[in-house]
Amino acid sequence: MQFTYVNPTVIHFGQGQIKSIRQAVDVSQKVLVIYGGGSIKRNGVYDQVVEALQNHTWIEFSGVEANPTKETLDKAVALVKEHNIEFIIAVGGGSVIDGSKYVAGAAKYQGDGWDILTREHTVTEAVPLGAVLTLPATGSESNMGAVITRKATQEKLSFGSPAVQPKFAVMDPDVMKSLPERQLLNGLVDAWVHVCEQYITMPTDAMVQDGYAEALLKNLLTLGKQYNQRDNDSWRANLMWTANQALNGLIGVGVPQDWATHMIGHEFTALWHVDHARSLAIVQPSLLRNQIEVKRSKLEQMGKNVFALEASADLAERTIEAIEAFYHSLNIATHFNDYQENKTTAIDNVVAQLESHGYLKLGENKAITLEKTREILESAIQ
Amino acid sequence: MQFTYVNPTVIHFGQGQIKSIRQAVDVSQKVLVIYGGGSIKRNGVYDQVVEALQNHTWIEFSGVEANPTKETLDKAVALVKEHNIEFIIAVGGGSVIDGSKYVAGAAKYQGDGWDILTREHTVTEAVPLGAVLTLPATGSESNMGAVITRKATQEKLSFGSPAVQPKFAVMDPDVMKSLPERQLLNGLVDAWVHVCEQYITMPTDAMVQDGYAEALLKNLLTLGKQYNQRDNDSWRANLMWTANQALNGLIGVGVPQDWATHMIGHEFTALWHVDHARSLAIVQPSLLRNQIEVKRSKLEQMGKNVFALEASADLAERTIEAIEAFYHSLNIATHFNDYQENKTTAIDNVVAQLESHGYLKLGENKAITLEKTREILESAIQ
Repeated sequence: MQFTYVNPTVIHFGQGQIKSIRQAVDVSQKVLVIYGGGSIKRNGVYDQVVEALQNHTWIEFSGVEANPTKETLDKAVALVKEHNIEFIIAVGGGSVIDGSKYVAGAAKYQGDGWDILTREHTVTEAVPLGAVLTLPATGSESNMGAVITRKATQEKLSFGSPAVQPKFAVMDPDVMKSLPERQLLNGLVDAWVHVCEQYITMPTDAMVQDGYAEALLKNLLTLGKQYNQRDNDSWRANLMWTANQALNGLIGVGVPQDWATHMIGHEFTALWHVDHARSLAIVQPSLLRNQIEVKRSKLEQMGKNVFALEASADLAERTIEAIEAFYHSLNIATHFNDYQENKTTAIDNVVAQLESHGYLKLGENKAITLEKTREILESAIQ
Repeated sequence: MQFTYVNPTVIHFGQGQIKSIRQAVDVSQKVLVIYGGGSIKRNGVYDQVVEALQNHTWIEFSGVEANPTKETLDKAVALVKEHNIEFIIAVGGGSVIDGSKYVAGAAKYQGDGWDILTREHTVTEAVPLGAVLTLPATGSESNMGAVITRKATQEKLSFGSPAVQPKFAVMDPDVMKSLPERQLLNGLVDAWVHVCEQYITMPTDAMVQDGYAEALLKNLLTLGKQYNQRDNDSWRANLMWTANQALNGLIGVGVPQDWATHMIGHEFTALWHVDHARSLAIVQPSLLRNQIEVKRSKLEQMGKNVFALEASADLAERTIEAIEAFYHSLNIATHFNDYQENKTTAIDNVVAQLESHGYLKLGENKAITLEKTREILESAIQ
């Protein structure tokens, strides 16, 4: 087990914490507040941010969409450059925070920001940013990763840099009160798959990482079962903190990681605008069944420790069934049939996108070739 | 649930990581290496540190004892001031790292360093320090706390400050190869009690904190059962990472904490030089039995989730028995009879020390008065 790890994001967790941004950002710094479609104006979050920033000089940029696009974000990049912005506050969910990371990095680069996603430019310098989280799901509030879409070419790619990790993250569970059910459920599923990507690989005897991952999975299972208690303070706080821990780097230190479900799922979102979390639920069960032999040992461990299943020769198979049943219990589909072309063309399109992005071999063993992906899609797409 | 949390220590974990201090400390900074009794010269750790620092300007201070004393450490404080030291590297276990934190804080203070322990001086500035851990136990390598002893008055007190938290911690499990059994066992027990102090309190529905705490406790239980595999790389790595997580702040965010076992145990060490971990094993079972009613709910949860005990009316009692059995399985005593005075005087001495330090009410509910402490000691001391 070898790793270097630190998580430098200061977490301000709890009800009423939005006011902490007043101290978290130096009053001498010129601030850009970035947000999405305006829901923060209806639920009171915007007003709390305005109140906290009353002594700061700040401007705003709104309209960052779900699956944030380079096309929209480049307007914010121009704004940062024009106004010499010194600090960015992202107010929103994973899309707004991911988008703000792109803005923070691209604003310190003279070329086209998309170069960051194609690896032609490496972000080593960025405008510092902080996050006010409004939708627990992606963990973006305290990690260094971001996923950005280019509308023109229907591409969805990711990048990461320590320079764009938020300096602070405000996590007030009260902001979840006004979330649509669809987004709450997406958050639960997204966090679940984040843990799985770092856990359902091969055994490496990493007891802390496995134990933490299993604790988070059991939390999400319980929160799913208690979904009718979602208006409870403690339900909200537990989902918010669990989703954060699912992707802040900690459970993934020094262990193999998969992420094939994400890479394939991204293409569903890019091609057919499937919600990110739902794209994962579509891909994952078919992928696990396809890769069951290499993943058997961890699936058995998960069956025993997460689902409390009795040992049997087909424990790994039953674990995948339990995962699928978990999605179905939340009314999340595990197959896709909402394409306009025929099934073969739909599969061809996903495979072609993956190929064009250079994702020829995915997964912790690089065992998921394009041929394997095609097999997975044969089952996932109906 | 309300908290602010960050852990800024960069962890360099794994075999061969000692060399990473070369990059972790700027070559322009004048370094003081602090260590203990010289075991690092026998096990090769010293040589690795010397090799890594070959381009740095550095001096050393050795002789920090277990339960480090103000009297010894003040010599290092004088050295830091005399040589204008800009960075301290602590090479050792919790005692050396705690002692180095005292040195780092006291060196930036004009008065007597003991003022830090009596709260007459608050550390806001310190010489930056890093740690090379040689004994997994206290978690001091990535937290802001330290416990220091004043020999002259047989006092053992603690302080904490973000300014003394190590900038980095090197955790190479290979350093454990030469540890005496007694210290390995102490580390296991110390980490166990650290988790308990943050977990066996009252239920607050904090699912992540509880789930992580239970994962760590189960790890320590397993590592104790697998004690005959202690020469295995993976056993060592798992103990080292588990002990770190037990006291890096994460499992304690936003939840009640106890620490009464530590406060009472410290007096056993100050008065009779009982190993820190062993003082905890002496105090804890008697304390838990004394406080069983307020702790019943969490003890039952621990019985179920950590020890896999079946439900029963006396589940809390059986959980305490299981904890005690765990200590006994490691040949760690849970009672003390090694005093020279008679039992009543021994108890009086502990109570008098606690009183003189102002510890009149201990525990998460402030329910452990001196009278309750006396009851606990009646059982713990035989």
